[in-house]
Amino acid sequence: MGQQERVVIVGGGFGGLFAARALKGADIDLTLIDRRNFHLFQPLAYQVATGALSPAEIASPLRAVFKRQRNTRVLLGEVVDFDLAQRQVLVEQLPNDETAAIPYDTLVVAGGSHYSYFGHEDWQPFAPELKSLEGALDIRSRVLRAFEAAEIEDDSEARTSWLTFVVVGAGPTGVEMAGQIAELARDTLRGDYRSIDTTSATVLLVEAADRVLPNFHPASSRKTARALEQLGVSLVLGRPVVGIDADSVTLGSADGGQEVIGARTVVWAAGVEASSLARTLAERAGSEVDQSGRVTVEGDLSLPGHPNVFAIGDMVRVRGGDGSVSALPGLAPVAMQQGRYVARLIRWRLRGRASPPFRYHDKGNLATIGRSKAIAEIGPARIAGFPAWALWLGVHVFYLIGFQNRLLVLLRWTISFVTHGRGARLISEDAASNGRVTTTD
Amino acid sequence: MGQQERVVIVGGGFGGLFAARALKGADIDLTLIDRRNFHLFQPLAYQVATGALSPAEIASPLRAVFKRQRNTRVLLGEVVDFDLAQRQVLVEQLPNDETAAIPYDTLVVAGGSHYSYFGHEDWQPFAPELKSLEGALDIRSRVLRAFEAAEIEDDSEARTSWLTFVVVGAGPTGVEMAGQIAELARDTLRGDYRSIDTTSATVLLVEAADRVLPNFHPASSRKTARALEQLGVSLVLGRPVVGIDADSVTLGSADGGQEVIGARTVVWAAGVEASSLARTLAERAGSEVDQSGRVTVEGDLSLPGHPNVFAIGDMVRVRGGDGSVSALPGLAPVAMQQGRYVARLIRWRLRGRASPPFRYHDKGNLATIGRSKAIAEIGPARIAGFPAWALWLGVHVFYLIGFQNRLLVLLRWTISFVTHGRGARLISEDAASNGRVTTTD
Repeated sequence: MGQQERVVIVGGGFGGLFAARALKGADIDLTLIDRRNFHLFQPLAYQVATGALSPAEIASPLRAVFKRQRNTRVLLGEVVDFDLAQRQVLVEQLPNDETAAIPYDTLVVAGGSHYSYFGHEDWQPFAPELKSLEGALDIRSRVLRAFEAAEIEDDSEARTSWLTFVVVGAGPTGVEMAGQIAELARDTLRGDYRSIDTTSATVLLVEAADRVLPNFHPASSRKTARALEQLGVSLVLGRPVVGIDADSVTLGSADGGQEVIGARTVVWAAGVEASSLARTLAERAGSEVDQSGRVTVEGDLSLPGHPNVFAIGDMVRVRGGDGSVSALPGLAPVAMQQGRYVARLIRWRLRGRASPPFRYHDKGNLATIGRSKAIAEIGPARIAGFPAWALWLGVHVFYLIGFQNRLLVLLRWTISFVTHGRGARLISEDAASNGRVTTTD
Repeated sequence: MGQQERVVIVGGGFGGLFAARALKGADIDLTLIDRRNFHLFQPLAYQVATGALSPAEIASPLRAVFKRQRNTRVLLGEVVDFDLAQRQVLVEQLPNDETAAIPYDTLVVAGGSHYSYFGHEDWQPFAPELKSLEGALDIRSRVLRAFEAAEIEDDSEARTSWLTFVVVGAGPTGVEMAGQIAELARDTLRGDYRSIDTTSATVLLVEAADRVLPNFHPASSRKTARALEQLGVSLVLGRPVVGIDADSVTLGSADGGQEVIGARTVVWAAGVEASSLARTLAERAGSEVDQSGRVTVEGDLSLPGHPNVFAIGDMVRVRGGDGSVSALPGLAPVAMQQGRYVARLIRWRLRGRASPPFRYHDKGNLATIGRSKAIAEIGPARIAGFPAWALWLGVHVFYLIGFQNRLLVLLRWTISFVTHGRGARLISEDAASNGRVTTTD
């Protein structure tokens, strides 16, 4: 009997997790590598950012997920390079800071993406992104601190800028975030303060395109815009952000004019850039990445010239049967389907079978706007309002990993729905202390 | 009609919170000052440290608690000094880093305490304390990281030291923490790893006194010791800690000998030192603090010579009717009762009535050891085992602030009880990255 096929999966997001889970019971030796010891249910990160949910409720420890999947080991580490010739992944092991070479027969890279600041990395300190758990907690602290600062601010102009919140990017995440901040100000926090009226807060949703949810049908965009305005969100469309600093956001316009808006709290949810692992992989394979940093893979998601190396999720573009290259939307369902596809392909290869190229089954688009409002597009059908929201809720609870998290999130949402409250409104120490050292008493 | 009495309460722990809540509806202008925007249910912090609970489940936003108490305003700030002559509290306001002087007619200081390192502050980086939420999260990350490090460690001696956990101090918190780490290793994490057997982990509970729970009856200590040993905790009694560094703990002994134990993870739960506010208050009043940093107050909890300034909780010693000074145990019930007492006294004074001195009603002592085991002492009665655990559970859920937290904690405990799991096993970024800068993809 030969040695078991060694499969290494890099990344525990939707793509990597679904690939690994779909390999349960396969006669392989599987290693899943991630920098974090948990899978993050990223679509709900914005709810952590507004205090509706706790981090642990949208995160599942990877070791718990794979506890009973005996062919799988989890490795906590950061992948720093690939040696495609020697078939090794170089990993900086986080617990001891040592670099190890992990050999593979088959490699699956699912590094994901992050928000891009369009070359303005200097904006990042003033406008944290909403993709990681830490980003979400940072935003939570900033938003809550802004209300605290407004409460004690005597100068009316400064107070107004503390009560002005800007969300950059009107994709699903930006729409959800803006809606939640408006609800926080107009509903949850109403009456919490004594000097300020939180309902007077301004929430601006800024989008360079001329409509919200640019990837949805224009009719969905119109409905979403109306719902956002009802929630108290002001839309700023067709204007790019050209500057961000500690207390203002500068907007450009088509005629070259600029407008400076006093705002102390900015949330970044625009632009997408592939994980740097895509570039590393492309360099090692002698290919190139596109403008968004994505590596190109074949129809079966393998790296050109490396049939045993796969890349999946929103760090890749896929070559079609006609040779054209296109990127699928950067959505969780794409990553999940690609993860499952690669797992199936690996199983087939073990049995000596060939596999057809990957095909994406578009299940539709979903975005929620606020209490009991959402937009759903399923094929030609478009649903809005409460039915769409019920669908959104069902899908999100269904795909949350772990029974306990599903139950807790449902319970939190039920309580929030009834009480209009948000339970997790903690300002964390680092943010509250502004970086200063704090004592423990 | 004269101006309203201005009452300032410093600290949103048990003492300050219960004082403020007991003043609901009183014809006063009340300001509650705290460095954090939430009340922490400190007795359950150790459950956050072992991943059984999430931070938000044991913390309640102060503004939400006082939303409908219209005579109360919450101020987010750190008290840096008292001006007893001018009747002002100097506060560094956290949202804008400016110092403000808050005037008062009546002042209540409830600054609490923290663990003391017996003058060995250099031990702190290696042995975080278990009193704050940040301390608990730090410990959670260290404990989980230790298992991760052991999993990839080739050297057997180093692996053993990664799998050795030392808890210093066998009061209720140390007992609970040691029991939880043992359960984590022997039960929750069992089967999560592939190279190590977590059940081989060593959990040492070190106590300078000659028994665990030194403040309980010796029979309770014996029962607790037996239960801990059944859980797999090794007791090291009558031996003080004389040294801690990154990979070892040194124990002293009566005969002057020393023993070095290889251990990478140390939790500190020993010694108690009053908040530095006690010293500031004493200095301003021309009095002194005791060895543990506590300020002495009169029988009505007022500062000698300052009948309008009160100090409560475990930062004070109380002068009895016979002139003797004694410290009550540093327990939540003491702080709660003193908070309520001061509130009543303030109400009485408003009506021109005098008040009898404070009297502590000892409701007993509680400590839990592990799944369904606890020790309770109520007056002369001592209860152990499941009935004590049910009592412990009931009392803790009852005193948790907020309906939502009660429900969530009960649900978490129920799930953990049934599944032997722990849902909140996240290694947070700061700890996982070991202080290095991490990217966001």
